[in-house]
Amino acid sequence: MSTSLIVILSTVYFNCYYAERMPRTLILDCNDKIGEEVTICGWVYTRRDHGKILFLDVLDRSGLIQVVVSQQTKSTSKESKPTFEVGSLHPQDVVCITGKVNKRPENLVNKNIPTGEIEIAAENIEVLSKAEELPFDMGGKDLDLQLPTLLDWRALTLRHPKVKAIFKVQEVVIDAFRESLKKKDFTEFQSPVIIPQAAEGGAEVFEIKYFDHKAYLAQSPQFYKQILVGVYERVFTVNKTLRAEPSVTTRHLTEVTTLDAEFGFIESWQDLMDEAEHVIKYIFDRLEKECANELKLYGVTIPKVANKIPRVKMRDAQKIIFKRTEVDHRNEPDLSPDDEKEICRWAMEEHESELIFVTHYPTQKRPFYTFPDPEDPEYTLSFDLIGKGVEWLTGGQRINDLNHLSENAKKRGIDLEKSELYLQAFKYGMPPEGGWSFGSERITQGVLGLSNIREASLFPRDMERVDIRLSQK
Amino acid sequence: MSTSLIVILSTVYFNCYYAERMPRTLILDCNDKIGEEVTICGWVYTRRDHGKILFLDVLDRSGLIQVVVSQQTKSTSKESKPTFEVGSLHPQDVVCITGKVNKRPENLVNKNIPTGEIEIAAENIEVLSKAEELPFDMGGKDLDLQLPTLLDWRALTLRHPKVKAIFKVQEVVIDAFRESLKKKDFTEFQSPVIIPQAAEGGAEVFEIKYFDHKAYLAQSPQFYKQILVGVYERVFTVNKTLRAEPSVTTRHLTEVTTLDAEFGFIESWQDLMDEAEHVIKYIFDRLEKECANELKLYGVTIPKVANKIPRVKMRDAQKIIFKRTEVDHRNEPDLSPDDEKEICRWAMEEHESELIFVTHYPTQKRPFYTFPDPEDPEYTLSFDLIGKGVEWLTGGQRINDLNHLSENAKKRGIDLEKSELYLQAFKYGMPPEGGWSFGSERITQGVLGLSNIREASLFPRDMERVDIRLSQK
Repeated sequence: MSTSLIVILSTVYFNCYYAERMPRTLILDCNDKIGEEVTICGWVYTRRDHGKILFLDVLDRSGLIQVVVSQQTKSTSKESKPTFEVGSLHPQDVVCITGKVNKRPENLVNKNIPTGEIEIAAENIEVLSKAEELPFDMGGKDLDLQLPTLLDWRALTLRHPKVKAIFKVQEVVIDAFRESLKKKDFTEFQSPVIIPQAAEGGAEVFEIKYFDHKAYLAQSPQFYKQILVGVYERVFTVNKTLRAEPSVTTRHLTEVTTLDAEFGFIESWQDLMDEAEHVIKYIFDRLEKECANELKLYGVTIPKVANKIPRVKMRDAQKIIFKRTEVDHRNEPDLSPDDEKEICRWAMEEHESELIFVTHYPTQKRPFYTFPDPEDPEYTLSFDLIGKGVEWLTGGQRINDLNHLSENAKKRGIDLEKSELYLQAFKYGMPPEGGWSFGSERITQGVLGLSNIREASLFPRDMERVDIRLSQK
Repeated sequence: MSTSLIVILSTVYFNCYYAERMPRTLILDCNDKIGEEVTICGWVYTRRDHGKILFLDVLDRSGLIQVVVSQQTKSTSKESKPTFEVGSLHPQDVVCITGKVNKRPENLVNKNIPTGEIEIAAENIEVLSKAEELPFDMGGKDLDLQLPTLLDWRALTLRHPKVKAIFKVQEVVIDAFRESLKKKDFTEFQSPVIIPQAAEGGAEVFEIKYFDHKAYLAQSPQFYKQILVGVYERVFTVNKTLRAEPSVTTRHLTEVTTLDAEFGFIESWQDLMDEAEHVIKYIFDRLEKECANELKLYGVTIPKVANKIPRVKMRDAQKIIFKRTEVDHRNEPDLSPDDEKEICRWAMEEHESELIFVTHYPTQKRPFYTFPDPEDPEYTLSFDLIGKGVEWLTGGQRINDLNHLSENAKKRGIDLEKSELYLQAFKYGMPPEGGWSFGSERITQGVLGLSNIREASLFPRDMERVDIRLSQK
């Protein structure tokens, strides 16, 4: 027994080796280390040759700092190459630099960056990873590339501070959505991607080979969030929405991240808009606090929102548009993209709001589960939130009576045969309820004023591209 | 102009109608309303007839309360049925009940629920939605059903407090994962579901018809999280993992929610385990604080973790198992499910830890991007975290040199032709890095001691079921 114990103890090991260089200091923390020696690690962002001196801007997750490399600077590298030539350093090389943090001379202070009063005099540079020659200049304030190039080189272009900023904004949008609803007793859930039946959409659904069967990709978490109202009353999900969108526009992708909420025991369908309004204002507040730098890079401020976001019936919106533009869409069943832009201009002029709720869309244009307006069943208790000319959110009250729901599905020719769980939820008691869905890319695009939604998706998918251009392979 | 202005103003409307009943009080808040009249809304959970008096337990998102219904109780309902018969109330009916909050007599206090000292004397009951007769009893402390039945009636069975509790635990697991990493400067991102090429896995990948092309469902966010280390240094994602898992076991699903992290500038691959250990302990802390009731329902406490979770090489684990059981797996390339159970028993007995890291899996059993151990390249700098006998996490250091990575892929016959973006990330400077992936269902299953992973998924998918049983339709 005692021998076995010895063997056993010796087989358990704990942290026992570390790299030899001194512990890393984050670039932003160098502000507190003036006069001290530090090691920073990051990517070479730009290099500027000044004869016998080389200036590097080095970037890590905390920020950017200027490094002064002189002929006294030594080098080490993992590949144990004996000498280091200053001239061989390139943008995107990964380096660890040891040196002294110095105050910059007064006339060289850069007030535009948080480390603008300091620089590092490099004593030693270790190259952890060499970058190849870049296909284009990444050092400018803007990354002036056509969209296809921006996407063909996505792993690289995402590293540009201005591109990177987009997804910091998106992260805050999503996180603020979650936080605002958690504070109101909503439960977060994970909605499935694989579904048994394309009951909601019809043509624009992706089909998958599922062993010996067919299955489909979820176009929305609609059925699942409604089921869960019966369980938790108030739910939300950050969800992948997959649509075989056959058109190439600046507003559509085949894969988007939607921010869905659904809740029961509403007193009025207006509660649904109140909640959406609360969430978008909460998102704006957090963006203002946490993304000042990112907004500044795009030269934008948070969209203006009226104290109460205006709510206008779709038919009235069409009348307003007709009065303003003489374009007569008063009999159209939906707003066109141009109509959405025009009604936003109106909202800004008349209500100082860049956001507006358009309500009461026609029954024929909304899904079978949408609650008809009791005062005029040709229209529904539904709404879109239009932000800066584009739909950011869609929602409405749902039919919570099983018979009404089933009849409506049948009337529309929708087969709910494989949607047993959905029907179960209504068979066993469902309160008055509704919900809505934000597009996280749409909010990001709108807030930053991006011209194409593809810029607001890390790895955008459309009918022509899934990372690479499909037609080329 | 003035006429147009009048029209326009009248078309903007604000909240203007509400239901007639008094504002709803959440059940838990009734504790502060003794002697007052309130309206509660929720689901009838159970009914107990006592002659002329009927006791209801009513449930809302905040809790459960006892309601006393007498012959004086009146009724109203949306369907404007004139009379309300007490006998017609059923479990899962959705009701709004108005009545007075009374203190219960001392001898009828129920100390097991937070509202156990009070009850409501119902004055009026409004039925918002009638439930059909339930297919089984939902009123017991346990829901004693076979797994297929539990899943066939998922929309209903999820409403049982003990089932519902599972996904409150899961919500906290996921939220704690996010919170722990955000505090350490990690950026959250959304990883794509649709991918251009099944470069990682091979057979177990779902194929989709993508317009005129083929595409696949992501088996992991691996390539994308590595790409983003080049952008944000430290990233994480809550991600859908889709695998055409051809076996039916108690541990596998075709769709799971994984908790993935990846980070650069590691000093040693042990940093990766340190971070995973930090996260799981953070999750346990929050579960202990926020899920006491849920854990109690399952009669469990948080798993025991040593001050430092033991780390044992796979080959040493096999030796330990051989010594303990005389089962000789010392030449096997991986641990079997029984081995994983046995090594956990050992960790508990020798280190008072229900969790253990097993490290240095053979190179041939790990993906092509796994970093080989410089001291013995037949093995890798990789690890699993085994919790209560099942793998909860897998991870390791990655190869960050482009040539090494490409050669390794080629050696394994892996085609990276369509993975241009992945290769780009290494072409343009990648620090030493690694990461790992937790299975959220595995943690949930382990913590609550559920016998089948299907219980830890809201809507479990396997080769035989996507909501409904596939073979039956």
